[in-house]
Amino acid sequence: MSSTLTELTLPQPTVQPREPDSVADRIAASAAATAGRMTTDAFHDWFAARGRAGRFSVERIPFSQLRGWSFEPGTGNLVHASGRFFSVEGLHVTTDQGPHREWFQPIIKQPEVGILGILVKEFDGVLHFLMQAKMEPGNRNLLQLSPTVQATRSNYTKVHKGTDVKYIQYFNGPDRGRILADVLQSEHGSWFFHKSNRNMIVEVTGDVPLDEDFCWLTLGQINELMHRDNLVNMDSRTVLACLPAHRPQLPAPDAFLSALARSRDPETGALLTDVDLLSWFTAERSRHDVRAERIPLSEVPGWTRDETRIGSDDDRWFDVVAVEVQAGNREVTGWTQPLIEPRSRGVAAFLVRSFGGVLHVLANAKVEGGFLDTVELAPTVQASPDNFAGLSVDPPFLDEVLSAGPDRVRYDAIHSEEGGRFLHAENRYLIVEADEAEAPLLPPAGFQWVTVSQLSELVKHGHYVNVQARTLLACLNAMSASTYDFMGTRAHD
Amino acid sequence: MSSTLTELTLPQPTVQPREPDSVADRIAASAAATAGRMTTDAFHDWFAARGRAGRFSVERIPFSQLRGWSFEPGTGNLVHASGRFFSVEGLHVTTDQGPHREWFQPIIKQPEVGILGILVKEFDGVLHFLMQAKMEPGNRNLLQLSPTVQATRSNYTKVHKGTDVKYIQYFNGPDRGRILADVLQSEHGSWFFHKSNRNMIVEVTGDVPLDEDFCWLTLGQINELMHRDNLVNMDSRTVLACLPAHRPQLPAPDAFLSALARSRDPETGALLTDVDLLSWFTAERSRHDVRAERIPLSEVPGWTRDETRIGSDDDRWFDVVAVEVQAGNREVTGWTQPLIEPRSRGVAAFLVRSFGGVLHVLANAKVEGGFLDTVELAPTVQASPDNFAGLSVDPPFLDEVLSAGPDRVRYDAIHSEEGGRFLHAENRYLIVEADEAEAPLLPPAGFQWVTVSQLSELVKHGHYVNVQARTLLACLNAMSASTYDFMGTRAHD
Repeated sequence: MSSTLTELTLPQPTVQPREPDSVADRIAASAAATAGRMTTDAFHDWFAARGRAGRFSVERIPFSQLRGWSFEPGTGNLVHASGRFFSVEGLHVTTDQGPHREWFQPIIKQPEVGILGILVKEFDGVLHFLMQAKMEPGNRNLLQLSPTVQATRSNYTKVHKGTDVKYIQYFNGPDRGRILADVLQSEHGSWFFHKSNRNMIVEVTGDVPLDEDFCWLTLGQINELMHRDNLVNMDSRTVLACLPAHRPQLPAPDAFLSALARSRDPETGALLTDVDLLSWFTAERSRHDVRAERIPLSEVPGWTRDETRIGSDDDRWFDVVAVEVQAGNREVTGWTQPLIEPRSRGVAAFLVRSFGGVLHVLANAKVEGGFLDTVELAPTVQASPDNFAGLSVDPPFLDEVLSAGPDRVRYDAIHSEEGGRFLHAENRYLIVEADEAEAPLLPPAGFQWVTVSQLSELVKHGHYVNVQARTLLACLNAMSASTYDFMGTRAHD
Repeated sequence: MSSTLTELTLPQPTVQPREPDSVADRIAASAAATAGRMTTDAFHDWFAARGRAGRFSVERIPFSQLRGWSFEPGTGNLVHASGRFFSVEGLHVTTDQGPHREWFQPIIKQPEVGILGILVKEFDGVLHFLMQAKMEPGNRNLLQLSPTVQATRSNYTKVHKGTDVKYIQYFNGPDRGRILADVLQSEHGSWFFHKSNRNMIVEVTGDVPLDEDFCWLTLGQINELMHRDNLVNMDSRTVLACLPAHRPQLPAPDAFLSALARSRDPETGALLTDVDLLSWFTAERSRHDVRAERIPLSEVPGWTRDETRIGSDDDRWFDVVAVEVQAGNREVTGWTQPLIEPRSRGVAAFLVRSFGGVLHVLANAKVEGGFLDTVELAPTVQASPDNFAGLSVDPPFLDEVLSAGPDRVRYDAIHSEEGGRFLHAENRYLIVEADEAEAPLLPPAGFQWVTVSQLSELVKHGHYVNVQARTLLACLNAMSASTYDFMGTRAHD
């Protein structure tokens, strides 16, 4: 207690700028690089070879053939004997707004926070991203491109006892590299109860051994792959959405890409100031009164369990099913597990417009029963159209998205959701240009126009932007002159 | 579907800078103004007169004399017959860290989001804040200085049907003014389950009628009042903490105030970059596994209900009690209600140090059972010392705070917590200088050094900074050359 503020005897530690030399330029340079350590053609060969090496098969089984999993007496919850992994329980949701004010459903409870992490490193002055060819039972095509690390907390806290989560030490070890992003983000609020994962991007400078299931890609290469169906998995997409805002380096060949480039620039203006956007979001969160209570799975009305599935009596939404996984590679053997299988493919789309030469996307403050806090920003449209067949209410803007001519569709690809929990859960992701008649400057309640860099700013924090909107943010960042032509070559169902 | 992005026929709306002309300078000018529409002496006269006009009394009663409130059969929860207001229920918390890994307690459940709002307006070029002399039953001294609006959602959504929430239309009406802050913030996580309120600051330019219970003060005047005990209420303090970061205009007379001024400047550096700070916070949130389940109040072990209180069997923490309120002014009559009454006064203190000439506060990522999400940033010390009497574990840094000599104590005042729910819940708020021996540059797990403007940046979003730390942030913003001398005049228990 003898020193004072001005008499400290110890050497003063360095105070550094709160936002040091921006990495945005280096990320933009990586996005402009269409080839890196390997060409994209070579990537496809490598990826196909990894697929052949995997020998992985997934088969539906009745619940009675699950090993270690059972329906808990009393609650009917589907649980694992170890108490680990996850459980399927019931949820009762009531809200005070909208056409659906009360519903019951099964939901996955998995309280553990996992790490989804991408390691980045410069080669020849260009940032490369360490991506993984990873099989997951629910993936369409089984093998998809994953982040460097996808680990549950059970996995990664056992690292010091020896585990097979490769590269985890770069994310939670004492000598980890420079953090580019590290934020807890929600996952699907319709299927998960209060689930969040830690999304991390870490840059290292030292040597990194390369495992055979991993490859280094530039951001430009990943962005090109983002235009393919069912290739870049959900975990990769949500982590990529957490990249700091970066304006594309390539000149924009048309008005749309020019407006998109300005929208991605944090220096550019917007319809709403940041404080007005936060205020609108606060008002949206405040005006919804959402009560979501977990209940026993056996007490969920309107859903019926038979030998192979738990499904809704009106044949909508999703089923809970069971699968047997056979894995032929040397590290893991087979296992059984439950999965959620949606009844049909969903649509997740942003309607976009240019205001003052700056692209804006129409975000929707959406209630999902499993969100930690009432609403998050979702795509303009996020729905499975088949769920609404025969009903009197259609999701707003669904027609505008589905009826858009090809000249208005700026991005269109099918992506799988989390393949470790969902079976063939696909969404068609779309970026669709709209006009005043389709998407007015003054949108209906619950909708708001935001720029891409405003979304990037919100994604620095959790519980603002939902997982589908984060995929679309990654898509918007993936669109540039180099990836743009790719669009013309594909035809969709 | 005929227009394209470049052929819009409607006039283009204006795109504006995302952060328009900063209000920070005008706020700093108001903070430098030690007198405004009335002198501070005149304020004290007015405030005393409002106290005499109020004729308000609060008396403890047994639970059986509560009107409209009762213990619900079965659960034993203390509820109101209308289903409105709030309820007192039970909470069961388990965590995987720290000395206390499981506990049970009563807790207030009040799911409604309220508005705490301060209206600001320029008079003679200086921003003034519209403050209210408001009686609340739990307040020490009953009358304290409140925000313009303190309204529950039940109150403010009925505005169009006529209600007595004065000035509410400036916060949720269609013609409200310019938003300076609007964010959902948590309240006491030890006493409330998942409670949050909307903290708003709105600037208007038109005429505002002045009700007799309200007065316009400059920020400099409020900052001076912040140095008095039990005058500026909790609601005012949390709203003031949401003011945009603003560096003081007055020259700093000593090294401490210089370091504080730099710390409040968003352009100044810090020990941690912003992304590293967010990463540390994410890691803190991820490493805690907190399960907080509501249970029936009658099933809370270790707590006993008698005729007048529900208290812990080891005579610590708090009691649930009941009061009868007599209100003599013309608009409201008497009522009865439960309140939470802490057993003893708490301490909420930041240890602070200057690194590189920039003041840093030592924040603690603290678990509270009622938080929506595991941890929030709390003061270095937040505890009621009496709760730890006879126990083997003392809160970290408590000794360093309580044993600090007067030369190290830079701020010291007693403030009341929410007087509508808590009875005489006082904390002694302290800002205490420390050195390397007391508070090392590399602090223990769960603690981190942050600048004042980093705290201000986090407070733009909810669930980062808890209500006690927000009070201390308001205190740090209240310290300037003009308020500083005030400290020398007071002696504390």
